[in-house]
Amino acid sequence: MEDEKIQIFDSTLRDGAQGENVNFTVEDKLNIARELDRFGVDYIEAGNPGSNPKDMEFFLRAKEKPFTHARLVAFGSTRRKNVLASEDNNVRALLTADTEVVCIFGKSWDLHVTDILHATLQQNLEMIADTISYLKAQGREVMFDAEHFFDGYKANPDYALQTLRTAQEAGASAVVLCDTNGGCFPDEVEAITRAATGAVSVCVGIHCHNDAGCAVANSICAVRAGARQVQGTFIGIGERCGNTNLSTVIGDLQLKRRCRCVPQEQMVQLTKTARFIADIANIPLTAGMPFVGRSAFAHKAGMHVDGVLKNSASFEHVPPESVGNKRNVLISEVAGRTALLSRINEVAPDLTKDSPETSQLMDLLKRLEYDGYQFEAATASFELIVLRHLSRLRNFFSLENFKIIGEQSTAELRNRSSAMVKVRVGERYEITADEGEGPVHALDRALRKALEVFYPSLKDVKLIDYKVRVLDGKDATASKVRVLIESTDGEAVWRTVGVSADIINASLIALVDAIQYKLTRYDAQSDVRLD
Amino acid sequence: MEDEKIQIFDSTLRDGAQGENVNFTVEDKLNIARELDRFGVDYIEAGNPGSNPKDMEFFLRAKEKPFTHARLVAFGSTRRKNVLASEDNNVRALLTADTEVVCIFGKSWDLHVTDILHATLQQNLEMIADTISYLKAQGREVMFDAEHFFDGYKANPDYALQTLRTAQEAGASAVVLCDTNGGCFPDEVEAITRAATGAVSVCVGIHCHNDAGCAVANSICAVRAGARQVQGTFIGIGERCGNTNLSTVIGDLQLKRRCRCVPQEQMVQLTKTARFIADIANIPLTAGMPFVGRSAFAHKAGMHVDGVLKNSASFEHVPPESVGNKRNVLISEVAGRTALLSRINEVAPDLTKDSPETSQLMDLLKRLEYDGYQFEAATASFELIVLRHLSRLRNFFSLENFKIIGEQSTAELRNRSSAMVKVRVGERYEITADEGEGPVHALDRALRKALEVFYPSLKDVKLIDYKVRVLDGKDATASKVRVLIESTDGEAVWRTVGVSADIINASLIALVDAIQYKLTRYDAQSDVRLD
Repeated sequence: MEDEKIQIFDSTLRDGAQGENVNFTVEDKLNIARELDRFGVDYIEAGNPGSNPKDMEFFLRAKEKPFTHARLVAFGSTRRKNVLASEDNNVRALLTADTEVVCIFGKSWDLHVTDILHATLQQNLEMIADTISYLKAQGREVMFDAEHFFDGYKANPDYALQTLRTAQEAGASAVVLCDTNGGCFPDEVEAITRAATGAVSVCVGIHCHNDAGCAVANSICAVRAGARQVQGTFIGIGERCGNTNLSTVIGDLQLKRRCRCVPQEQMVQLTKTARFIADIANIPLTAGMPFVGRSAFAHKAGMHVDGVLKNSASFEHVPPESVGNKRNVLISEVAGRTALLSRINEVAPDLTKDSPETSQLMDLLKRLEYDGYQFEAATASFELIVLRHLSRLRNFFSLENFKIIGEQSTAELRNRSSAMVKVRVGERYEITADEGEGPVHALDRALRKALEVFYPSLKDVKLIDYKVRVLDGKDATASKVRVLIESTDGEAVWRTVGVSADIINASLIALVDAIQYKLTRYDAQSDVRLD
Repeated sequence: MEDEKIQIFDSTLRDGAQGENVNFTVEDKLNIARELDRFGVDYIEAGNPGSNPKDMEFFLRAKEKPFTHARLVAFGSTRRKNVLASEDNNVRALLTADTEVVCIFGKSWDLHVTDILHATLQQNLEMIADTISYLKAQGREVMFDAEHFFDGYKANPDYALQTLRTAQEAGASAVVLCDTNGGCFPDEVEAITRAATGAVSVCVGIHCHNDAGCAVANSICAVRAGARQVQGTFIGIGERCGNTNLSTVIGDLQLKRRCRCVPQEQMVQLTKTARFIADIANIPLTAGMPFVGRSAFAHKAGMHVDGVLKNSASFEHVPPESVGNKRNVLISEVAGRTALLSRINEVAPDLTKDSPETSQLMDLLKRLEYDGYQFEAATASFELIVLRHLSRLRNFFSLENFKIIGEQSTAELRNRSSAMVKVRVGERYEITADEGEGPVHALDRALRKALEVFYPSLKDVKLIDYKVRVLDGKDATASKVRVLIESTDGEAVWRTVGVSADIINASLIALVDAIQYKLTRYDAQSDVRLD
């Protein structure tokens, strides 16, 4: 396997679009396709032009600018039973899409031929052969997706292999083994793929779904058995439990099995590419996603943190830098002083473990953690605390006071929470009010409204996530709550935290920090008017 | 493998607690342990009593009521280099936890022995042997976690196997092969596990992490190679990319490889158990999680929907009912009716699938779920909704209106939130007010104060947990929130849920339901004075 080229075939825009809550605009699809091309995948399957007019629009617009590395693929099915390929609407739509490559799927499970297509086994072979040779004659590179290949092979191995041979003879450049219902295990996939690579001489591809939680492992085992193309979606989205996660497979195959999937210099873009696609798709990237997740290299246990700092291979199978991710040493009860100092040094590189400020700061951080603060995600709050403690933080404003009033919402009258705030900037005061859905929403709006008078750049700031965690259920509604807020100004993203027995106070601490951070980090030359 | 018993060893409360954003209270841990016991796992590893005082408190409180199926496990390490096992603090803490089973981890990679422990290879074997035989002499069942076993085996197979044999000879009931940095592939795990099962006669366990996206597949391949215990966490939480997801492994092994992991009749509780644990941990369950995710059986592609309706095996590797999940066919009305009816029948046994009330009720429940309600944990709210819809619920009171006022807390003046409520019981009204830490606390107190006038038994009711989940982060502070409340009257415990864009409203819905439920279920002959 070492040094073998493995083709990467991304179907984020076709099979990925079948995922629940996935909805791409044509613009989204163009953005994602360009990003995949930049990253260096070989094939981008971008839609089914015969079944979806939006997909056809994509293919026409994609032609406006050539791709640098990837080839676009249009997806469709073999011709219908009693129609010439040249007269089948779906096949014609594939040609209209005008891509270099087309991928057609067909049956390889005898039961599906007879019971679903109501065709004879021979008729199905002719449908495969005709469709491929017709498209090939029109100048296309043609791939064949053998639907339900593994289940088909288990039921009738000779016939399943016969469909592959038929596709090869008709001119397919690759035959792709699909685990359509996602239920196979690695040992089956490896054995059956070996039978397939023994039966044909063209490139064999593997296309898995994750219903048994084995899609990545199945793909890797298929490559062991001679498959040389892996199909999947970049961040694993897709129908039901999703498709093979290509960001994981690429990390595994290229860094750990030394195959060539993408140009080596692109590997450091793996994390960025995955996050870009997640952002465009508006799908939160699972924190624990291998290689690219926010927590993929996060260490919490004290012992592990020590281990990682001593010898990173102890608890990291690859260096985080190799995929453009970073190690994240979580500040937690069990993390040692070494770990804490390395976090402090990111903000204040001049402090040493013997500086008097260091031990005061550590005491402060420990007290805050004891009170329920957590800085694992809220690195912006962590920075502000360190800077504030060292008197290195400019105070852009102070909240003088606030008042909220809430009443029962009724069908006619929503937004029954309102908030009044008074802020001070230098010697100037601003008092204003706003209303919202719930007291925190009202406060958030009133606070921004007051501060935008002084700092117009705050108009770009938006809260993108708001999380509440009750810290100790025992006192129930009088329990302490921790509020975690994620903010963006359209470019950067930062997280702040607040803790209080009062959810309003906790939210306010995090809201105020979020604004402070924006002004501190991204508006150093802030347009404040202290006239 | 068929019909083999595979021990399920759940470490949600120990290794799972190392996950980013995972923070269990003692109450959370007790709730999760009871749920795992009910479901039927064999071992529950619940903490490291030597490193964490909260874990010790858990073990002491867990003894108050025996477990029906599972055995509790305390986790710790082998004794230190130059100390007798009987004098090692960590080992003593393991005994104080007073569990039937202890699991200790030790080194099996020669490099780590010499470079991290700074011990000789022989000293390490003695540390393993001493610790196990000492704990065994104290009446414990002892398991040995061989840390970094796979990396250790690759570096020095003889020594790695020697650590296992040493553990066996010292009396360990199981030796567990750990892929500590999560970087192994199925073929390696299978081959190396085969070497281990050939070298010892005791039970061999497998403990994987998901850094290469292969934890589930690796565990299944280890079972093929003779492992008979799988360690993991129920919903896959854990440090970095997480541990082996046991809900996936149990589905795979029991339904597809016909092993015996848990009592067969429990399999239909798989989804409920996973969602319960996610709710208590306040971790959103990934929609595409195999078997138990919300989208695990969701079909979007028209073609697939037809296929599923014609022959469900085409696009479903197991029937969703077999794991207590439901098919989610976006265009179909028939999704999940059977499962839902069986839940409704628990409250109203007389309803049949043809009753007109049944389909109205199903529509209502679907609308509520669409709005963000979830009844997996909040069974009390589910009961109330069914009873209310069937007009079988006695209305003990109604909340006429409320008003809350909040101001900034100061050092001198806390409890700056106050609430006024007006309730009606029969023809009588009661208006009162109270204050609290935050608006929800103030409301909760005022509401009880008003109702205790009519129902003195409410004096015993206490809220024991209060959880808030933001449902859709996109609109941040204006997002919908789901509030889950756990109440007790000192004997029974029940959970209620409320959803609203306003956290006050959401809390109020759950608070009112909590009181209604107490009066409905536990005070049928309630001492109401409607004079």
